[in-house]
Amino acid sequence: MTNIDLNCDMGEGFGVYSLGDDAAMLEIVTSANIACGFHAGDPLVMAATLEAARENGVGVGAHPSFLDLWGFGRRPILGERPADIEKHLIYQIGAIQALAHAAGHPIRHVKTHGSLGNMAAEDADLALAVARAIRTVDPNLIFVVMPGLETERAGERQGLRVAREIYADRAYAPNGNLVSRKLAGSVIHDADEAAERVVRMVADQEITAVDGSRRPVAIDTVCVHGDTPGAVGMASLVRKRLSDAGLAIRPMAEWLA
Amino acid sequence: MTNIDLNCDMGEGFGVYSLGDDAAMLEIVTSANIACGFHAGDPLVMAATLEAARENGVGVGAHPSFLDLWGFGRRPILGERPADIEKHLIYQIGAIQALAHAAGHPIRHVKTHGSLGNMAAEDADLALAVARAIRTVDPNLIFVVMPGLETERAGERQGLRVAREIYADRAYAPNGNLVSRKLAGSVIHDADEAAERVVRMVADQEITAVDGSRRPVAIDTVCVHGDTPGAVGMASLVRKRLSDAGLAIRPMAEWLA
Amino acid sequence: MTNIDLNCDMGEGFGVYSLGDDAAMLEIVTSANIACGFHAGDPLVMAATLEAARENGVGVGAHPSFLDLWGFGRRPILGERPADIEKHLIYQIGAIQALAHAAGHPIRHVKTHGSLGNMAAEDADLALAVARAIRTVDPNLIFVVMPGLETERAGERQGLRVAREIYADRAYAPNGNLVSRKLAGSVIHDADEAAERVVRMVADQEITAVDGSRRPVAIDTVCVHGDTPGAVGMASLVRKRLSDAGLAIRPMAEWLA
Amino acid sequence: MTNIDLNCDMGEGFGVYSLGDDAAMLEIVTSANIACGFHAGDPLVMAATLEAARENGVGVGAHPSFLDLWGFGRRPILGERPADIEKHLIYQIGAIQALAHAAGHPIRHVKTHGSLGNMAAEDADLALAVARAIRTVDPNLIFVVMPGLETERAGERQGLRVAREIYADRAYAPNGNLVSRKLAGSVIHDADEAAERVVRMVADQEITAVDGSRRPVAIDTVCVHGDTPGAVGMASLVRKRLSDAGLAIRPMAEWLA
Repeated sequence: MTNIDLNCDMGEGFGVYSLGDDAAMLEIVTSANIACGFHAGDPLVMAATLEAARENGVGVGAHPSFLDLWGFGRRPILGERPADIEKHLIYQIGAIQALAHAAGHPIRHVKTHGSLGNMAAEDADLALAVARAIRTVDPNLIFVVMPGLETERAGERQGLRVAREIYADRAYAPNGNLVSRKLAGSVIHDADEAAERVVRMVADQEITAVDGSRRPVAIDTVCVHGDTPGAVGMASLVRKRLSDAGLAIRPMAEWLA
Repeated sequence: MTNIDLNCDMGEGFGVYSLGDDAAMLEIVTSANIACGFHAGDPLVMAATLEAARENGVGVGAHPSFLDLWGFGRRPILGERPADIEKHLIYQIGAIQALAHAAGHPIRHVKTHGSLGNMAAEDADLALAVARAIRTVDPNLIFVVMPGLETERAGERQGLRVAREIYADRAYAPNGNLVSRKLAGSVIHDADEAAERVVRMVADQEITAVDGSRRPVAIDTVCVHGDTPGAVGMASLVRKRLSDAGLAIRPMAEWLA
Repeated sequence: MTNIDLNCDMGEGFGVYSLGDDAAMLEIVTSANIACGFHAGDPLVMAATLEAARENGVGVGAHPSFLDLWGFGRRPILGERPADIEKHLIYQIGAIQALAHAAGHPIRHVKTHGSLGNMAAEDADLALAVARAIRTVDPNLIFVVMPGLETERAGERQGLRVAREIYADRAYAPNGNLVSRKLAGSVIHDADEAAERVVRMVADQEITAVDGSRRPVAIDTVCVHGDTPGAVGMASLVRKRLSDAGLAIRPMAEWLA
Repeated sequence: MTNIDLNCDMGEGFGVYSLGDDAAMLEIVTSANIACGFHAGDPLVMAATLEAARENGVGVGAHPSFLDLWGFGRRPILGERPADIEKHLIYQIGAIQALAHAAGHPIRHVKTHGSLGNMAAEDADLALAVARAIRTVDPNLIFVVMPGLETERAGERQGLRVAREIYADRAYAPNGNLVSRKLAGSVIHDADEAAERVVRMVADQEITAVDGSRRPVAIDTVCVHGDTPGAVGMASLVRKRLSDAGLAIRPMAEWLA
């Protein structure tokens, strides 16, 4: 039976603010990517999310970002030196690692957020900075990467375990990266379409871009979202269809080589 | 020969801003308390400070604070629950711990900054929160405390090594806490006066308050500052006088029981 | 027919975050207090809220705060000099004044948020700083005050029009200030109880404290909230009961002397 | 006698941090561009800077930026919609306008800071957003622009008075924009070279790019800096040489048509 992980960004509140239905998603996914305070999250949100994940048996990881609370880490910020980004990531991973230790539920993976993730997927130096930061903090951490792109290569070169990820609800550009959220058609809103597409990508081990071109990729984890009621329903359907297709849906850290 | 440590707050820049003459102070002190991003500091400043301390053979520690960049952690903020402050501290200590590990120069102590330190010295619940945060991250970390006050008691109850600290340039209230910076006479500006006072406090193992009352205390470390040219000169004189008085000036982590 | 204003805090989102059902509340209230970026709000949220208020014929005012985004302006911050707070307020009022001008819907009042409001109600110097800031920016702005407390006195001494405000859902301390949110019973959750209480306070022109003591006050405006579904229902009921009691519910700026 | 203005960025401290020798520069320049809190500055710094400028007879203007305190507004941030930037600018200009009014020294101009300025100079939509923001707040404000580029065109189309600016210490790209600070040779450090170059540019009314190409431009104001001791000396020399060359060095608002 083939394993697959289902991951979701969580803990993206801040102070009085909350975002997404984490409680619902913790019953659906097997891994939670938890914001570390740079695009969202604060020590209290992080601690509460880590504890809730532990109680639900959901694996946890760091979800570090550019330092950009107002822009939620989605603004492409140019001109940062990779060596500086590396330090920003070590800070964030170290912070959540300590809170996860306190919660009795250690982090097992790292997935970069938003623009940092998109940019690292295409920028070898930035991808290397991410991989180095992870390895520096803990070489046993899994690096969640865009399959076929710079992050996958950087992770492998740094000797990290990598989890190749696809998105349930995002369109792909011909180069294998995500289509920008700002473009029409970049986000898939129909749950059935998203679920069917995920099952097909996992079965075929390839992604289909908006121009119809196809790229063979290995797939270890599927990213779903919980920001809207519709998103939760979609995530639930993705899980059901993957299960119906005979996949074992389990936390990546339990089976990833 | 009796040991004494000399400590200084460092790494208190942020982005383009810098504060204090860290380079000069690294040649004077034996322990550096490094800001963790909540009142000052950012991952780049922290990394650079950790590396400079390592090169100078100066011990390093976390200098966590209330979340208050604009107020530099000096504003008394009421209404925080100790359990929340504990998580804020775990976050900060974890963040610097990872950066220190990356710099090859692990942190050895924790000293709270500004209002948090002043408040914890008189609030048993807050002091306990600090001690618990330290123990949770690493029970081998030394807790720098105000002698005779709640922080010392909390550290001892949590089984932490404590370093009892006096300030070279700050006046003491009868209860053993610092006189608020807002009050006249709270800061000593004369280097000779400060140096002589430190030597006397260390020799007598007691502090003298502004009302002339005296409190017996154990003293392990002396806090000096580097924010102004005068401060650097004072720190240098404090070191010389302690040395002249026959004390061995060494990093606390090397000798503290 | 006696006039009364109904006011609500709005525009308390930030970046991707939103808070409260502003759309629903704009159909209930006559005045909106709009966050200015220090405890919540950003230029985009402010502009959108101003435009929505204009379209609904709801009067608008500034809702300035201590600089404390993470604490949502609810943390009591000590040690600020009144002269400094005055400048913080001028900044915020000026910022929203320009955005309101751009939206074609000028601000007509100022109401301080959270801890700043609570503290100013009991601190004559702080209350004076608020009143001075308002008068400096525009002496025609109405100052929303706690009746019988320092803010009312400061507003009157500075020659400002004052709108005396009661809260529909908050318990009162014997001194006429609000009971802290941290204490049990400080927030009234039953809509019927809140609505009946408001009508009684307006009819009798007095507030009843938690100890049963009564204080005669003038009442110009009633504060309702929109943070939860229940809150919107309560606000709606408060409006209905005031209307049933024969009051004319109109924006304060249209009738306040 | 031909008029010329000398301008300098000021008020770029934040909280406990200060930056640049504003006191020295206020004796050299005729216009101060004052940070508005988004890349630097806070209400206290702004108020103190406005008062110091008033006492020195130096004209004042807003120096708004992208929202990026940590990056000091120097990071190119992509993906912002011009309509959103317009609101960010209205907020900042309104805030300083109110503080300037309180200080009895109204602002007369607006100059965008850092990356926002560089990007607007080449992006017609962004330049239009800046010009619209200025006109919305006060159509009498002068727009300080890069001569020959989009900001100049946008200012003229919006009917604003424009002040065409050159930089004393920055190299020019062939397209008339500044060479990025990240590139070698982008900043001129020799005071004599800078001063001579300014006098020549003003006399010839043209700028010479790093490739030797020349662009005719109108010049109304010269930007000097005060961040380092050397910078203050350079600014002083630039002023002296312009004066020696027979120019009348006066605040732009006094003479600009």
